[in-house]
Amino acid sequence: MKAIAFTGMPGSGKTEAVNVAKEMGLKVISMGDEVRNEAIRRGMELTDENVGSLANEMRIKYGKDIWAKKCLEKLREMKEEIVVIDGIRNIEEVETFRKKLKNFILVAIHASPITRYERLMKRGREDDSMKIEDLKAREKRELSWGLGNVIAMADIVVVNEGSLEEFKNKIRKILEDLVIRNSKK
Amino acid sequence: MKAIAFTGMPGSGKTEAVNVAKEMGLKVISMGDEVRNEAIRRGMELTDENVGSLANEMRIKYGKDIWAKKCLEKLREMKEEIVVIDGIRNIEEVETFRKKLKNFILVAIHASPITRYERLMKRGREDDSMKIEDLKAREKRELSWGLGNVIAMADIVVVNEGSLEEFKNKIRKILEDLVIRNSKK
Repeated sequence: MKAIAFTGMPGSGKTEAVNVAKEMGLKVISMGDEVRNEAIRRGMELTDENVGSLANEMRIKYGKDIWAKKCLEKLREMKEEIVVIDGIRNIEEVETFRKKLKNFILVAIHASPITRYERLMKRGREDDSMKIEDLKAREKRELSWGLGNVIAMADIVVVNEGSLEEFKNKIRKILEDLVIRNSKK
Repeated sequence: MKAIAFTGMPGSGKTEAVNVAKEMGLKVISMGDEVRNEAIRRGMELTDENVGSLANEMRIKYGKDIWAKKCLEKLREMKEEIVVIDGIRNIEEVETFRKKLKNFILVAIHASPITRYERLMKRGREDDSMKIEDLKAREKRELSWGLGNVIAMADIVVVNEGSLEEFKNKIRKILEDLVIRNSKK
């Protein structure tokens, strides 16, 4: 099994990259879904706060890579040849995936802070409460979880400063290469 | 004054980027030199251990951006139009430079872990004690200081997976654009 994971700061274009994979018919496994499923199993209400605390609680109790391990269990059941993993947050998860999957490719999407803030502000235009300070606070929170280290350890970096179409083409190219290499095996 | 800072993981090519700047006649200010100068002022012997402890001690005592502040003092005396800053380690330093310098551009150099390990192993071939475990330990240490966050917050990412000449051309192009934009001011 080959797995490709997308990572990036808020506003970098990570969600768009995952969407390209979905459009290509690739199976996407979301680490956030694993947390939400666990919350459902426990009969918890699916609020952001509940899901966030459960995610952290489990990390403290079972190790920072607990959600990677849960994903791996699911991946084994799936028996897909290529999967896309969405939602990696820390370097321990990366290390677990690298150890347990023979083919694991970590792709970081990069855009400058200015580009990312502009995108997020545009996206949140309907929401009057959206302030640059909120974006910076969210960014700091994600960095404090170790997102910067994940980005630093990427196998491939894709720069997303141009048009959406240009970016989607870059991602499509990477995924196609992977599919082709896989079929030639 | 315009300042450009290079950052990157060990083996990414950061030193080569700084060398291109020097070849172009740009002034380079090394944050490590600031620490070494302080050690000399205190009459300390310049061992790695002494310099490392002094750097950390000062960060604990005066804040994580203390070496950025020391650099800024020096930059003010220098009165250069464009300077290159080498040796940024944490996001607090980036924030201080962004706040105090009107034009601050953070450039991250990226190469995949495999490429970086190969380069570092080749570089250290004469040294029999060089092991992949040592490289990984050094990498972890740099990430624990916050290097990943610095990389995640870069304005520009330069990928360095090809030849040295190709990489040097990319860096030269970025620096030339900066010099041209500066002269047009």
